[in-house]
Amino acid sequence: MSNDTKPAGLPTLPNAASRRDFLRKAGLTALVAPVAASALGACSDAKAEAQANTADATGGTMPGHGAPAAPAAPKSAATMTLAEKRANADRMDAHHEKGIKAFPAKTEGLGNQLLAPRMEKGVKCFDLKATVRRWETEPGKTVEAWVYNDQLPGPMIRVKEGDRVRITLTNDLPESTAIHFHGLELPVEMDGVPFITQPPVKPGDSFTYEFTVPNAGSHMYHSHHNAAKQVALGLLGAFIVEPKTPRAIERVDVDYTMILNDGVHGYTLNGKGFPATEPIKAKLGQKVRIRFMNEGMMIHPMHLHGMHMTVIDKDGWAQPAPWKCDTLNIAPGERWDVVVTANNPGVWAFHCHILPHAETEHGMFGMVTALIVEK
Amino acid sequence: MSNDTKPAGLPTLPNAASRRDFLRKAGLTALVAPVAASALGACSDAKAEAQANTADATGGTMPGHGAPAAPAAPKSAATMTLAEKRANADRMDAHHEKGIKAFPAKTEGLGNQLLAPRMEKGVKCFDLKATVRRWETEPGKTVEAWVYNDQLPGPMIRVKEGDRVRITLTNDLPESTAIHFHGLELPVEMDGVPFITQPPVKPGDSFTYEFTVPNAGSHMYHSHHNAAKQVALGLLGAFIVEPKTPRAIERVDVDYTMILNDGVHGYTLNGKGFPATEPIKAKLGQKVRIRFMNEGMMIHPMHLHGMHMTVIDKDGWAQPAPWKCDTLNIAPGERWDVVVTANNPGVWAFHCHILPHAETEHGMFGMVTALIVEK
Amino acid sequence: MSNDTKPAGLPTLPNAASRRDFLRKAGLTALVAPVAASALGACSDAKAEAQANTADATGGTMPGHGAPAAPAAPKSAATMTLAEKRANADRMDAHHEKGIKAFPAKTEGLGNQLLAPRMEKGVKCFDLKATVRRWETEPGKTVEAWVYNDQLPGPMIRVKEGDRVRITLTNDLPESTAIHFHGLELPVEMDGVPFITQPPVKPGDSFTYEFTVPNAGSHMYHSHHNAAKQVALGLLGAFIVEPKTPRAIERVDVDYTMILNDGVHGYTLNGKGFPATEPIKAKLGQKVRIRFMNEGMMIHPMHLHGMHMTVIDKDGWAQPAPWKCDTLNIAPGERWDVVVTANNPGVWAFHCHILPHAETEHGMFGMVTALIVEK
Repeated sequence: MSNDTKPAGLPTLPNAASRRDFLRKAGLTALVAPVAASALGACSDAKAEAQANTADATGGTMPGHGAPAAPAAPKSAATMTLAEKRANADRMDAHHEKGIKAFPAKTEGLGNQLLAPRMEKGVKCFDLKATVRRWETEPGKTVEAWVYNDQLPGPMIRVKEGDRVRITLTNDLPESTAIHFHGLELPVEMDGVPFITQPPVKPGDSFTYEFTVPNAGSHMYHSHHNAAKQVALGLLGAFIVEPKTPRAIERVDVDYTMILNDGVHGYTLNGKGFPATEPIKAKLGQKVRIRFMNEGMMIHPMHLHGMHMTVIDKDGWAQPAPWKCDTLNIAPGERWDVVVTANNPGVWAFHCHILPHAETEHGMFGMVTALIVEK
Repeated sequence: MSNDTKPAGLPTLPNAASRRDFLRKAGLTALVAPVAASALGACSDAKAEAQANTADATGGTMPGHGAPAAPAAPKSAATMTLAEKRANADRMDAHHEKGIKAFPAKTEGLGNQLLAPRMEKGVKCFDLKATVRRWETEPGKTVEAWVYNDQLPGPMIRVKEGDRVRITLTNDLPESTAIHFHGLELPVEMDGVPFITQPPVKPGDSFTYEFTVPNAGSHMYHSHHNAAKQVALGLLGAFIVEPKTPRAIERVDVDYTMILNDGVHGYTLNGKGFPATEPIKAKLGQKVRIRFMNEGMMIHPMHLHGMHMTVIDKDGWAQPAPWKCDTLNIAPGERWDVVVTANNPGVWAFHCHILPHAETEHGMFGMVTALIVEK
Repeated sequence: MSNDTKPAGLPTLPNAASRRDFLRKAGLTALVAPVAASALGACSDAKAEAQANTADATGGTMPGHGAPAAPAAPKSAATMTLAEKRANADRMDAHHEKGIKAFPAKTEGLGNQLLAPRMEKGVKCFDLKATVRRWETEPGKTVEAWVYNDQLPGPMIRVKEGDRVRITLTNDLPESTAIHFHGLELPVEMDGVPFITQPPVKPGDSFTYEFTVPNAGSHMYHSHHNAAKQVALGLLGAFIVEPKTPRAIERVDVDYTMILNDGVHGYTLNGKGFPATEPIKAKLGQKVRIRFMNEGMMIHPMHLHGMHMTVIDKDGWAQPAPWKCDTLNIAPGERWDVVVTANNPGVWAFHCHILPHAETEHGMFGMVTALIVEK
């Protein structure tokens, strides 16, 4: 069962109402403090705060999001009255609460959806069309995106070791392109590097990749032409290869793929920034496999609250022995597979621990989601 | 025995005089060349050099510290006479020597000090008060800091697996806050994420965390509210959990916790930049455990000279087998525990190997300390 | 056999003609599409594109190379005709093809060449002279470099565990300097840190390091004085120590050292940027050892196409068990040794997967090379 295949056993994404319901059942909403009504008039203050926070030489801040900064309040903390401090806190907290309450926020478009193959004489056939579209990364924020099959990340391809697959790429971009199957040990003609292994695929043209899937694991496909731009804009997707003989540790209840990205679209998980990211859900005692994939330009040390992760695979290859951590550093191009035993009920923050990738003065954003363990 | 507990068996920090004494005994001062008196008049040159080095798009340079740059001397190296080169070298070397001789430099305030619990009916009770203060990161450089109990890093909490602990946070900041116990697998109500697991703790208010310590290892506590700012300003500390049954490899003579940080306070180890960092001291043959913790926004590959490090734990979890290195890459949110056998006498540089985090034209700064192995 | 020792069994670098020959024999040139002649007139367009791409706050882009950016075409993709898109693609592809066809491009100067020792009464003696010179990093791009023996990286020193070695450094720079042997566990007097273990070596002076080589592995030597500048400018090299008793896994056919760097010289492998980088060549079935060394300021996750890498050593120390990957994250100061079984014939891209370190709108550059597996 996996998020990717949307099996009947896994509930669909809760909408805001059902999520509040879940939190209430879990006894969590009782903990949430009411926010002063005056906070609703805080927009102009918020704008000033954001402007004061635009300079950041170190943290890789994204345009439009505030950076960590020394407080530049008109009054220093030392001379503020307690009432002023509390009013200040209420204004800020209202922004934070608003973000949390919106999670998981609806946005237009959902990437990383399983692509069912079309069978042709025993060959699993997939069609990928590269186009330009607008993509909503968080509520109200849309960006230009270059996508496969209208999705960002592109549709998930999921096959078995030894399968024969045929993938037809059609290029409807204003540039040439090509697909590299990152991690698959293919014949060189199928490697997708223009001018080394194939000609570039011109606008309006198609190119067909066909091969027998050689090695299992969590792999990726993405453009390998003008890739610093094309991948940053969204020409990427997961390529999962199930092994012929799964190991015992691979027998899990939830199989989740999390593609990390940064760059022109902001800090995203599967193409969305918090609060539009997707929570991972498990029932108490279930095993959750998470396949981390980094398609960005920066490292992202992903931190799970409340439970540890057992690392089993690197780039689709089993580690000599599983090992445990709660913060896993994922570098560009890497894939790491972990298994979490969901033995601690609650809503658990799950985020990049480069804090400017996860939070601003206005609350959480970017690379933040939750692992929800239901009793 | 540990740096944290300041046992009688470990000497206090040497002052400049006693350190020179140590170096002399170790036969090292004989190696140090005298610096030309003319170097003392080099300040104006130094200022010009620093100004020439302010632009750096790549290295994450901190304000106030020079960046690596191609030499922009008024005369090119090719046309300088040997006498001019030596005069140039003497000027620069005087700055370098001054920094080394100042180490370990006294500054106001010392963080990461062990906090003794107050016992209440078998519960270990700790009080943490969050306030704003000035903090001296290196001699003469003070910054605004947000601190627990006037310390940066906050006081070390050190307990045992299975202990019952109660931690009362009082907020005297101009914002709300909360504490997340990073790495501890707590009941969700104690996880410290405002609007998900608890209300934010408003200015003037308190909040009490109470739990039975679930898992051993090197963990951290820090703010999880507006954290990109609050942690960067200093709301962080070590949370060490001793195991019920220590492994043989954990029987060490010196137990040192090194918290790495970057951001608005500059590059720091335990809240101080070189030469105000603290040397680690061991006698020949002793075993030294170092608990690296990264509370910053960047990776820091820590390099030890003269001896290797044996990596034993990641995020408080034993690695399947210990492994050796001399440079260990520590990402934000990660903790790595290593053991060094102090079998090589001398004063050994120990620093981040992103060189712009450790040295400028004016000498070492930032993330530099020493492991001193005494015969 | 190694790239470093240039054994007779390994062909010299192919020139452009012989490389095209190789590609043709491998059936690859047939795949390469002809480029429209009109592409030759594309220079002015290219310039405009490059100018549009200079702003990049996140990716660490080097001066002179374009950054990933949302397309800023005068016409949006939606309103372009197919003919306009194809013309646009042809212009861009011509740049990409030109770079690939130039590989491996000739440049003046070759670093990392094995330095034969001079034997003196059983001691292996090496002379290293530090000077300033111009260095060609890619065709037509020369930069100021600070070098050992006119090479960048400096000459490779390759000795055996237990050897007695004597290294005489002569300083012809406009600054003082010193050499640290990064990874070697030497007596402290030989550690090369001015004012801690020795006086700085002034311009015009010499200093002799002498020691018995204590530990095997892939190590480095580099300046440890004003190092953020001196190492960035080129004062670095490989120091390989062969073990007394090699492990079975170390019996390889090709032994290649790859020194990664970034900073003022751009993104380089062994001192050169693509297309001036050196391909690694192996015959089908051979085993290739690659010794990665990072002398820069950033991580570089190196990705090999077509085959996996088996990681055997970290910083010269055997990992507890070899493990596999296709993307290996190498942090500043780290060395990682891997073995690749060259079982997949073809020309395989091999590059840093931080894509802005490897490709621009104008094609591949920087940290890109190829592993060529010949049938």
